[in-house]
Amino acid sequence: MARSSDGRSSLSRIMQIFAAFDVDAVFLTISQLSARSGLALATTHRLVAEMEQFGLLERQPDKTYRLGVRLWEIACRTPGALGLREIAMPHLQEVQARIRQHTQLGILEGQEVLFLERLSAREAVVNVTLVGGRLPLHASSSGLVLLAYADRPVQEEVLSGGLFRYTPDTIQNSGELRTVLRKIRQDGFVCANGYIHPDARGIAVPIRGVNNVVVAAISVVVPNDDAATAPFVRLLQAASQAISQDLHAAYAPAADPSATPGGRYRPLVSSSLDSMQYLPRAPRPAVRQRAPRNVLDSFGP
Amino acid sequence: MARSSDGRSSLSRIMQIFAAFDVDAVFLTISQLSARSGLALATTHRLVAEMEQFGLLERQPDKTYRLGVRLWEIACRTPGALGLREIAMPHLQEVQARIRQHTQLGILEGQEVLFLERLSAREAVVNVTLVGGRLPLHASSSGLVLLAYADRPVQEEVLSGGLFRYTPDTIQNSGELRTVLRKIRQDGFVCANGYIHPDARGIAVPIRGVNNVVVAAISVVVPNDDAATAPFVRLLQAASQAISQDLHAAYAPAADPSATPGGRYRPLVSSSLDSMQYLPRAPRPAVRQRAPRNVLDSFGP
Repeated sequence: MARSSDGRSSLSRIMQIFAAFDVDAVFLTISQLSARSGLALATTHRLVAEMEQFGLLERQPDKTYRLGVRLWEIACRTPGALGLREIAMPHLQEVQARIRQHTQLGILEGQEVLFLERLSAREAVVNVTLVGGRLPLHASSSGLVLLAYADRPVQEEVLSGGLFRYTPDTIQNSGELRTVLRKIRQDGFVCANGYIHPDARGIAVPIRGVNNVVVAAISVVVPNDDAATAPFVRLLQAASQAISQDLHAAYAPAADPSATPGGRYRPLVSSSLDSMQYLPRAPRPAVRQRAPRNVLDSFGP
Repeated sequence: MARSSDGRSSLSRIMQIFAAFDVDAVFLTISQLSARSGLALATTHRLVAEMEQFGLLERQPDKTYRLGVRLWEIACRTPGALGLREIAMPHLQEVQARIRQHTQLGILEGQEVLFLERLSAREAVVNVTLVGGRLPLHASSSGLVLLAYADRPVQEEVLSGGLFRYTPDTIQNSGELRTVLRKIRQDGFVCANGYIHPDARGIAVPIRGVNNVVVAAISVVVPNDDAATAPFVRLLQAASQAISQDLHAAYAPAADPSATPGGRYRPLVSSSLDSMQYLPRAPRPAVRQRAPRNVLDSFGP
């Protein structure tokens, strides 16, 4: 890839622009983009213009920019996020319908848990999980489950690093963390009481994919009160088993009698059985060229 | 942005790699990526290596590539997709819990409807809608609603173009389409009976954002039978009004008494009220550098 005079590639500069956006900085001016990305103003101008042309950025009526819907549309083709979420979704909804608090799906990404889904209710307990957001492994129930089944090098790196303290109850030392991880492997679940906020309790179980490897965690965030945790654990374990079964069916060879219908759609799509059967032979008109802006621009910040 | 000898910019080549992935082509080898993107094999090799380094592509154990979870994570920062979906989600779930078929959220993108969400049930009717997928405006109920309230130039372009025929019932000529669009503006909803598949009926209503502009459509896909449609329309209209109200609250100035708590999080996050109040002051540890691969790689195609 072409490199500029400072030796950085075009793609690395694009990634710097992407990284300038954050959950509490979703609308940015060119100067803010320049300041937050560390790129010169002229470079930022040029990059932003080209990224806008491809729909990766969208200019708002107030001249701020936001990340483009086109970027999200492309990202929807990844089985690692949308595909897993699609397969898990009906089971997450079932849990959520029962508990009416927060139900979440997370995966291990680097040294954090990345949340693919979070279903909530208006009156639910306080919870910092965001869709597309990350939390440290030692503090979140999903993270603890993922860490308990992670490769040894990941575990050692987390155990040797600093453990961010959210509350007095957050796990603070590596000895305690080792004990908790061992207990998770024995029990198959974890209850994290007040580790991130005193009022909230996270309960999580692992989800196993093909080859029985842990690929994700399903969790609930509920009030940190005297309620029994066993019913939540049972609910989560049933959902986890159902998701594992659906993952196996989605990734089984097409000839396998347990395979979901839908052919090559299976790693990315989970719809009704009739839809899955129909999709591979459904007629698909050619998609027309996308216009650069969309009607959503008419409500802004 | 730097241009290669053929005059195409780096970003345009990256977009060609992105575009090579499709809903039924989610795992691609380097040669397939080269063939589908139209880029030379050597160029493809170089680009893919750099994209993998930034997590935009992920190499699978079988040496195919898929789009990276990192791409999805970045895309989660766009209020145009995830933000709107977050705000609509509790209301979509309420509709879905009642109908147990398919409940969908779509926006106008170019000359198609782009679906931000689709909730389904295993036994639901056949439905071709995919999350992140598009359908032509004249054939889908969501698309018809979006077209009815679209700017005149968009309407004229669709009316003057070819109307893809899914079934004998798909709207086939511009005169009929004009009549349907006028009726939608009068009635505030549409029933599309067998327009895409003979067994399926789409019913859609518009969602209005700030300034009363139509920003999205909410729809259900149900069996194309003798059931009365009025209950579905009422259910959708109630959900649409609730979503509009929440959109107003999310985009209202912070000082507005009707504004949702959550400050700058509001355009992107919709969690419980306690969570929204807490998020702006929640402690946030620095995110560590992401490792290039994740545990999900262990289940593959």
